[in-house]
Amino acid sequence: MAQDLDSTLRLLHAGTTSAAAQMQACIARAQAPESRHAFSLPLFDQAASAARDPDLAHRPLAGLAISVKDLFDMQGLPCPAGSTVLAGAPPATHDAPAVARLKAAGGVVIGRTHMVEFAFSGVGTNPHFGTPAAFDGRFGALPGPARVPGGSSSGAAVSVATGAAFIGLGSDTGGSIRIPAALCGIVGFKNTARLVPTQGAVPLSSTLDTACALTRSVRDAVLAHEILAARRVTRSPAPLSAWRLAVPGGMFLQDLDDAVRTAFERSIARLRAAGAQIQEIALPESAELSGVYLRGSFSAAESYAWHRHLLAEHAAAYDPRVRARIALGANMSAADYLDLVRARRAWIARMGSAIDGFDALLSPTVPIAAPTIASLAPADGTDAAQDAARDAAFQRANALLLRNTSMVNMLDGCALSLPCHVRGELPVGLMVWHGALRDDAVLNIGLRIEEALLEQ
Amino acid sequence: MAQDLDSTLRLLHAGTTSAAAQMQACIARAQAPESRHAFSLPLFDQAASAARDPDLAHRPLAGLAISVKDLFDMQGLPCPAGSTVLAGAPPATHDAPAVARLKAAGGVVIGRTHMVEFAFSGVGTNPHFGTPAAFDGRFGALPGPARVPGGSSSGAAVSVATGAAFIGLGSDTGGSIRIPAALCGIVGFKNTARLVPTQGAVPLSSTLDTACALTRSVRDAVLAHEILAARRVTRSPAPLSAWRLAVPGGMFLQDLDDAVRTAFERSIARLRAAGAQIQEIALPESAELSGVYLRGSFSAAESYAWHRHLLAEHAAAYDPRVRARIALGANMSAADYLDLVRARRAWIARMGSAIDGFDALLSPTVPIAAPTIASLAPADGTDAAQDAARDAAFQRANALLLRNTSMVNMLDGCALSLPCHVRGELPVGLMVWHGALRDDAVLNIGLRIEEALLEQ
Repeated sequence: MAQDLDSTLRLLHAGTTSAAAQMQACIARAQAPESRHAFSLPLFDQAASAARDPDLAHRPLAGLAISVKDLFDMQGLPCPAGSTVLAGAPPATHDAPAVARLKAAGGVVIGRTHMVEFAFSGVGTNPHFGTPAAFDGRFGALPGPARVPGGSSSGAAVSVATGAAFIGLGSDTGGSIRIPAALCGIVGFKNTARLVPTQGAVPLSSTLDTACALTRSVRDAVLAHEILAARRVTRSPAPLSAWRLAVPGGMFLQDLDDAVRTAFERSIARLRAAGAQIQEIALPESAELSGVYLRGSFSAAESYAWHRHLLAEHAAAYDPRVRARIALGANMSAADYLDLVRARRAWIARMGSAIDGFDALLSPTVPIAAPTIASLAPADGTDAAQDAARDAAFQRANALLLRNTSMVNMLDGCALSLPCHVRGELPVGLMVWHGALRDDAVLNIGLRIEEALLEQ
Repeated sequence: MAQDLDSTLRLLHAGTTSAAAQMQACIARAQAPESRHAFSLPLFDQAASAARDPDLAHRPLAGLAISVKDLFDMQGLPCPAGSTVLAGAPPATHDAPAVARLKAAGGVVIGRTHMVEFAFSGVGTNPHFGTPAAFDGRFGALPGPARVPGGSSSGAAVSVATGAAFIGLGSDTGGSIRIPAALCGIVGFKNTARLVPTQGAVPLSSTLDTACALTRSVRDAVLAHEILAARRVTRSPAPLSAWRLAVPGGMFLQDLDDAVRTAFERSIARLRAAGAQIQEIALPESAELSGVYLRGSFSAAESYAWHRHLLAEHAAAYDPRVRARIALGANMSAADYLDLVRARRAWIARMGSAIDGFDALLSPTVPIAAPTIASLAPADGTDAAQDAARDAAFQRANALLLRNTSMVNMLDGCALSLPCHVRGELPVGLMVWHGALRDDAVLNIGLRIEEALLEQ
């Protein structure tokens, strides 16, 4: 596993490495086969040059490499958002605020990263530009056939897992940071949406979109969040045993595959052995979310509103799996949408009554390990039955991958995914989560959990 | 003109009157012919008794009479919102926060007031319960045939104009406080919506609804607002000449009838003579609002979402003129609604650039004097041509009455309407307005304008 940002900054400050040397190492990893399809636009020459700028040395990120998901504007560059239909759009006139904050903090963009078209799935496949393979940020290349990296921040996750970037700027509308974090053995923190500006990013759901980042450790997640949110996280000295934790049952633990069940149960046992007080709760309110979605989703309604003119003109150029999900929004009426807003508000209040007595909840980030890329390959028309089977497998995988994570977006909450597998296992994520503005508790608990699990 | 609240409180504190005597006088006015159709539910006995409570003497409203629009919950009472379809609903379990704040401040509810069905028009007519006639709060009964009082807070305005209540709690979604203030020669202040809780009120538009009040003077409006918003207004000692004022042209001054043009032009001249610096501006951005509304309105979409199940069951029990406006929301898609949200936000930004250099803008509250009730009477089926003519006259009057006021709701702004006519003229309102959270400047300017105009 490549060093994390925090360790590397210590080496830099100790003078045992330089930003320029670090950038060269990152560029080498970005050019290595494991980073294939991660970068949509490499910026290696500019990055190598920028990392030598002595002005950056005293800034928090000290000239180290970051990557930027192809969803965020960067001045002078196109912003295709994983699509071909925006290829002809004029270049961005400004950096998105999230990009500007990372750059102002001394981050150097090593490249823009590939993503799911318009960020609209959790699997990580992209029929236009290829799908990067999952790479385990803790234990290196996965054995066997290539697996999906999770999405929509697919390239961002691979860039961080392979060590090509210390921070991968991405977004999370239903799990797009946390799913790839889980499948690539790294850390993803989805802050409460309102804490980081989402301007200058192609929207999926204006209600749920969150600008946030992937990192290789929880302490790096804290630093990245402080830069992105332009605020300080209040650090707590409290030990793991001081926090009131809960594992909700019901839906959160359904349909777990063996890899996830083994790693999750072992990790909970390990945390208990380290002193954690973890209560098991039923949380039946979580199952009520399907009733909230009765007449459609925010992502469908809000993406359709944004895409409808583009879609009318360029339907054939969309990934059919993405187009189908956007098109669902065409059937929602204004009243359906307003019912959804009202039902969500009431559901958040009920969930709050159930969980406000805890400091955080613990769940598997996703219930399954990464499927192989081949099993979910796009329809190619050569074998209708096989095409249908893969489409069905894709729909099932996508629904499962998004199930636990999207609950937190609907809650307007915050969640951290950190790796909880051990060597020889496929990557599995543990999600530490709560409602709106509980970010600091979630991060502090995440720091303690990371310490306890690293001893596994 | 009945004394205003401020003067009456001075008399009370000086011991020259008592709350009980004031309440008796208010009850007498509420029972007089000019208050006919103002009250939906008189609470005279309880009010007479409550006003004798010595505990109220030291509170800001000292046991004086207030009225409550039939839109707001009062514990144990029905809340029909001007309709018959909610008549069977169970009584409210709590006072709405706006009601609770007025009562906690020592206000005594003399009765609940009639309103336009579901608050959905600016004219003030109600086919179920009768329409109160406009009454001039400054100069008494209007000559000639009965005229509409403006709406939707029709009874609230008449209760304040006749002197039956010192404060009329109402609501303003497109002008429902300011239109009746203008047509009844009193003061209506629509604060920035978020400043006063709207819970416990039957919604018209969750985006635009504002809980606010009618009073007999601007100083009373300040006091009522401070109670409703639970905050202090920062008073400014600045004279009228110190404020940067503007009169926008274009749409705001179109289709003025003679009564309004005469009173408005004389008032602007009078303010200039008193030292006011008033610039005339074109404000072409105001005309862009029709483009924002291209695919429908917040009131249509949001009321339809609230009413659709009721409407399916009880369509025939609605006022046909209200039902038609709610039903417009059925044709809006979620994407239309989201386009409206986005277009409004962009329009607010453009308006802000145009008006942020001024402290307030001055416009006629409504472009026409109150039409007669007879000219807008509901269709009765005896003469199809006459019914159609009255419906057309109603639509035209409603559109004109709402035109200037609703612009401020779409701006998320604040606005004060104060009388600017003189004896012998029909009531005319002068609207002092600006964008969100400019409430204190608007109120301070309103105080100076009231002083200058009272010398007319």
